[in-house]
Amino acid sequence: MKALVYLGPGKRVLADRPKPVLELPTDAVVKVTKTTICGTDLHILKGEVPSVATGRVLGHEGVGTIEEVGAAVSQFKRGDRVLISCITSCGRCENCRRGLYSHCAQGGWILGNRIDGTQAEFVRIPWADTSLYRLPEAVDDEQYVMLSDILPTGYECGVLSGKVSPGSTIAIVGAGPIGLATLLTAQFYAPAEIIVVDVDDNRLDTAKRLGATQIVNSTDGRATDAIVELSGGRGVDAAIEAAGSAETFDLCQSIVAPGGVIANIGRHGKSVQLHLEKLSSQNMTLTTRLVDTVTTPMLLRTVLAGRLQPLWLVTHHFKLADIASAYDTFAHAAESRALKVVIANGRS
Amino acid sequence: MKALVYLGPGKRVLADRPKPVLELPTDAVVKVTKTTICGTDLHILKGEVPSVATGRVLGHEGVGTIEEVGAAVSQFKRGDRVLISCITSCGRCENCRRGLYSHCAQGGWILGNRIDGTQAEFVRIPWADTSLYRLPEAVDDEQYVMLSDILPTGYECGVLSGKVSPGSTIAIVGAGPIGLATLLTAQFYAPAEIIVVDVDDNRLDTAKRLGATQIVNSTDGRATDAIVELSGGRGVDAAIEAAGSAETFDLCQSIVAPGGVIANIGRHGKSVQLHLEKLSSQNMTLTTRLVDTVTTPMLLRTVLAGRLQPLWLVTHHFKLADIASAYDTFAHAAESRALKVVIANGRS
Amino acid sequence: MKALVYLGPGKRVLADRPKPVLELPTDAVVKVTKTTICGTDLHILKGEVPSVATGRVLGHEGVGTIEEVGAAVSQFKRGDRVLISCITSCGRCENCRRGLYSHCAQGGWILGNRIDGTQAEFVRIPWADTSLYRLPEAVDDEQYVMLSDILPTGYECGVLSGKVSPGSTIAIVGAGPIGLATLLTAQFYAPAEIIVVDVDDNRLDTAKRLGATQIVNSTDGRATDAIVELSGGRGVDAAIEAAGSAETFDLCQSIVAPGGVIANIGRHGKSVQLHLEKLSSQNMTLTTRLVDTVTTPMLLRTVLAGRLQPLWLVTHHFKLADIASAYDTFAHAAESRALKVVIANGRS
Amino acid sequence: MKALVYLGPGKRVLADRPKPVLELPTDAVVKVTKTTICGTDLHILKGEVPSVATGRVLGHEGVGTIEEVGAAVSQFKRGDRVLISCITSCGRCENCRRGLYSHCAQGGWILGNRIDGTQAEFVRIPWADTSLYRLPEAVDDEQYVMLSDILPTGYECGVLSGKVSPGSTIAIVGAGPIGLATLLTAQFYAPAEIIVVDVDDNRLDTAKRLGATQIVNSTDGRATDAIVELSGGRGVDAAIEAAGSAETFDLCQSIVAPGGVIANIGRHGKSVQLHLEKLSSQNMTLTTRLVDTVTTPMLLRTVLAGRLQPLWLVTHHFKLADIASAYDTFAHAAESRALKVVIANGRS
Repeated sequence: MKALVYLGPGKRVLADRPKPVLELPTDAVVKVTKTTICGTDLHILKGEVPSVATGRVLGHEGVGTIEEVGAAVSQFKRGDRVLISCITSCGRCENCRRGLYSHCAQGGWILGNRIDGTQAEFVRIPWADTSLYRLPEAVDDEQYVMLSDILPTGYECGVLSGKVSPGSTIAIVGAGPIGLATLLTAQFYAPAEIIVVDVDDNRLDTAKRLGATQIVNSTDGRATDAIVELSGGRGVDAAIEAAGSAETFDLCQSIVAPGGVIANIGRHGKSVQLHLEKLSSQNMTLTTRLVDTVTTPMLLRTVLAGRLQPLWLVTHHFKLADIASAYDTFAHAAESRALKVVIANGRS
Repeated sequence: MKALVYLGPGKRVLADRPKPVLELPTDAVVKVTKTTICGTDLHILKGEVPSVATGRVLGHEGVGTIEEVGAAVSQFKRGDRVLISCITSCGRCENCRRGLYSHCAQGGWILGNRIDGTQAEFVRIPWADTSLYRLPEAVDDEQYVMLSDILPTGYECGVLSGKVSPGSTIAIVGAGPIGLATLLTAQFYAPAEIIVVDVDDNRLDTAKRLGATQIVNSTDGRATDAIVELSGGRGVDAAIEAAGSAETFDLCQSIVAPGGVIANIGRHGKSVQLHLEKLSSQNMTLTTRLVDTVTTPMLLRTVLAGRLQPLWLVTHHFKLADIASAYDTFAHAAESRALKVVIANGRS
Repeated sequence: MKALVYLGPGKRVLADRPKPVLELPTDAVVKVTKTTICGTDLHILKGEVPSVATGRVLGHEGVGTIEEVGAAVSQFKRGDRVLISCITSCGRCENCRRGLYSHCAQGGWILGNRIDGTQAEFVRIPWADTSLYRLPEAVDDEQYVMLSDILPTGYECGVLSGKVSPGSTIAIVGAGPIGLATLLTAQFYAPAEIIVVDVDDNRLDTAKRLGATQIVNSTDGRATDAIVELSGGRGVDAAIEAAGSAETFDLCQSIVAPGGVIANIGRHGKSVQLHLEKLSSQNMTLTTRLVDTVTTPMLLRTVLAGRLQPLWLVTHHFKLADIASAYDTFAHAAESRALKVVIANGRS
Repeated sequence: MKALVYLGPGKRVLADRPKPVLELPTDAVVKVTKTTICGTDLHILKGEVPSVATGRVLGHEGVGTIEEVGAAVSQFKRGDRVLISCITSCGRCENCRRGLYSHCAQGGWILGNRIDGTQAEFVRIPWADTSLYRLPEAVDDEQYVMLSDILPTGYECGVLSGKVSPGSTIAIVGAGPIGLATLLTAQFYAPAEIIVVDVDDNRLDTAKRLGATQIVNSTDGRATDAIVELSGGRGVDAAIEAAGSAETFDLCQSIVAPGGVIANIGRHGKSVQLHLEKLSSQNMTLTTRLVDTVTTPMLLRTVLAGRLQPLWLVTHHFKLADIASAYDTFAHAAESRALKVVIANGRS
């Protein structure tokens, strides 16, 4: 089969690889019909994710059709249409039993990382019963690809951790795909004001279109004042960090109201300054979270009910044969105006 | 001043009464600009609320302008536009300190009940600092009258107690003003399905217009089956009782899913059967609540932000001089198609 | 092997039965070393539980040693010492994923009910990975038998549902094994007052010894007054129903404070009167719950840490060969003063 | 009257000052019978708290007797015995109404800071109804002084923010008075392991006596390894920072388990490094909190019920006339082995 293989920093190739087979009775093999690219994949290609070995098939998002299941898989059978979660959950370790799937003793984020991933024609999914989700018939696959990672990430790490609630004032710092996924799912809770911050006017326009009540371009270095003013001088109830830089983390610290939350979504490559000299008396909560995808069933229901429109995040389409172009488009988002790119398996 | 006075079962009169004066330094006197009638007022008139004495000025909802404040009132001054909460909260007893304003040791529901109320030109408000809410300038009063009672009631006793959450399936049993207030505020939480049940097709049409995803006319006695089917056979996550009868309470018991909530909003005149022979293994929660109005500031923010449209609940308008007609219209809602009627003080 | 078999209302026999075998790759077979009898077993013997067929091996509590595991069992191997949960949880259905194991689509309470149970030398446990818990080496089995059902039941259905919290005042109505398990685990939360109610002075003495701060014998019909007085006239924050009768449920309704909780643990054979004419304005929560055993790992930790002493619930010991005597002793608790009886497999 | 007056960095004097008088109808004047010294008072004396002006009477803890109340005070009268909260709460601003008394628009920590404090014979308490708590008759004052600040601080900022729960493993970093107050109140929740860390063996011995299950002297720089080992390799569910230094904050970051909480109690003079390069995928929560004293009524109940022994924190006693010695003893705790020192008003 065709698969996108990581060959070390800066190098990837669409190569022929053997079709995966069942290794354990709890495995399934899924024929991938649609996949996408995550910002994390770009970090991997820069050589910044040491757990990814040379030769790894990349990708941790996707939808597809069950090709084969192990003897202990009880929830799925050949032919079922499924959503692949970016997080593999064994469902039986202590962390899985308390909803902390991201720290599953036998799973977590392993797809396209410690085991071969979804940017391929087929993928082996361990612990299939608790790592796949059944899709309804007769609906287009594309929107569900957004449920593999980006929507649960925005919702769990941003909206739930940020305790977004009706009537509250929140700021989302970063209007890339993750920030916009946060913006879409924050609206489940009717906040009074959603202030979106970025340096790219194009992305801010998109944010406005997707529900931001205020947008702030932080290029001029005056975002703190602008946001505090927009919040009536009080600061924001939730400052959601969706960019992953020291500067944006700092901005979040300067705008959070007493009693508020800083919800950090982004991965950070190095330590940051935490201003306890100010914040230690601010009754503040700061959260970090690798997505658990515990909310995937609930997000599926909101999509089916028409309360969430994942397609608003999709800007470009490619065939698997053209995945190199997909990567180029996604990596140069400022020029291409790309949010999420969907890659279809040409033979499906 | 003119005031609507209760003269015993079945009897009310618009009479001249002395303008109220400050009695304690924590009091305010408010000039009422708009008020409304509550279903509870009809119960009082039927003689069903023994705490209401003959001679009482009725009404516990309204907006107005501060006429005078006591020496200990620090949050308001003459001329401020204010919302009057149906619940008087001293802010200092143990129940108030824990948010249980409805059981305030020195307040609770006393307006138009144990002390004179708002269906008058002026009203004395005890514990003004913690029982009134400042209104923004230059906005029409009318929508705010809906925040005195009905919207916090639907929200607190129905939506919050019912733990309505994104992707959930809920049923609201009763599409009168309270049920519709529940319907409007339930949408703060993006439930997947909102099934509204009533016996009046006109009210069900209104529910559909205000956001119900499904409507069920229960006249045929088959509502249980219909709702269970609409919920995919599972039952509803929240069954919200907004009608106050034994039959509707029974319906709630028959449709709640394992792990779900029955949120009872209605007052009940007598005991009901609780089907513990079935429910004791259903991991169910049943709640009752007299509104606390702790969420009034938050609801005000959602109105200001345009996330909540209180005017959708208002169907008729009257002058205080015509309050008798207002009562007749409200009391015969099936014919008049009345939801909430707003009564304006003619001189304001 | 020897097993206690139900032969229809009033009839049970210790008989020879074939040793159970693995049926699915997710099964384990456990050699039972200790088991016990539950009040539910008495109801079964009275013919009150229609789901139990003639020929069924009874029992849903126990500890033992893994005899054999299916190919898909990853958490246990032959020889492991394990605690058997009274609730079988597949770990992969929607209810299991949200912690509602009692309503597992493929499990729930099935042991000694829909499939053969633990009052036998061996038992087959479906979904072993998520229905068994590993026990530490070199500790006596006996105390852990109390973790199969009675302690998680008291804790989840009484203490957690009752929201017992530091400084609160609670009443536990019923001082049988379930009530006492509630009493032991309620002390995790340092309530100020724990009032235990029963009609049996002997059980009340035990309650006093196990941590009750007040005891009330309700034989004289004046328990309501006594409890309200003990709570300073306010009523109790949590009224925990651990007896399962209409009278005790009624008592709970009469003593719950505004804002309080009635946590119903007992199964009820028929409907009860719910006094909404009083309670609908009391901001009350009423809960029912079939134990989920989601807290079993946490309870194990408290036992290991010495924070919980399960042996305080054990009064009598028998061999499996004498299980008939064990049943008699347990069924006549008023005379025998039995709480929980432990039954050892004679050959272990 | 006599009062301890701050005269600039390093300078304090017991001086004669006019007895305070009522300034607003919501004020009370309290005759102080017992007070104490807080670590914050030492910071003030070092000139590290710029809000404290020269001439300020110090102290924010104490119990006493009502001397006089303003016309709007309804909860207290002359002669009532009261506990003075270190946090002044108006009870009517938005922050007070949501329990964030520390950020009261008209109060917060003002005693001995922005207005004259409790280390004096008399003190004026603004917003008396919502800043004082009634004490029962005929009980010794001394233990209640511990409820003004240190016990609610340990409980709210450490135990509640740290989400300490039954069966959990927690570490308290710092065994000074705040750390020990945290230790006492953590036991409300039956954690399985309470590891206390300090550099002073004497304080660690005290911790052991007051309930620590493990103690770690961090002098050797190997505390991280020791704690991780004590937690079974998993890290702690709550790392409670009760020392206020960069080193101890760092230790907390290195021992928190995935899904755990760092609860920062200490004030910090400067920013610290936050290791997001590790923590951003650890699903961690970090909290800061200035005590709100919302739990004071509940803590009072636990003391009255004998569930909490505040006197365990008191090591030394002085008369107000000897407050200079009290400060010296408290400031040199390593030598004096002082925890909390109680200062009695000589004339009471």
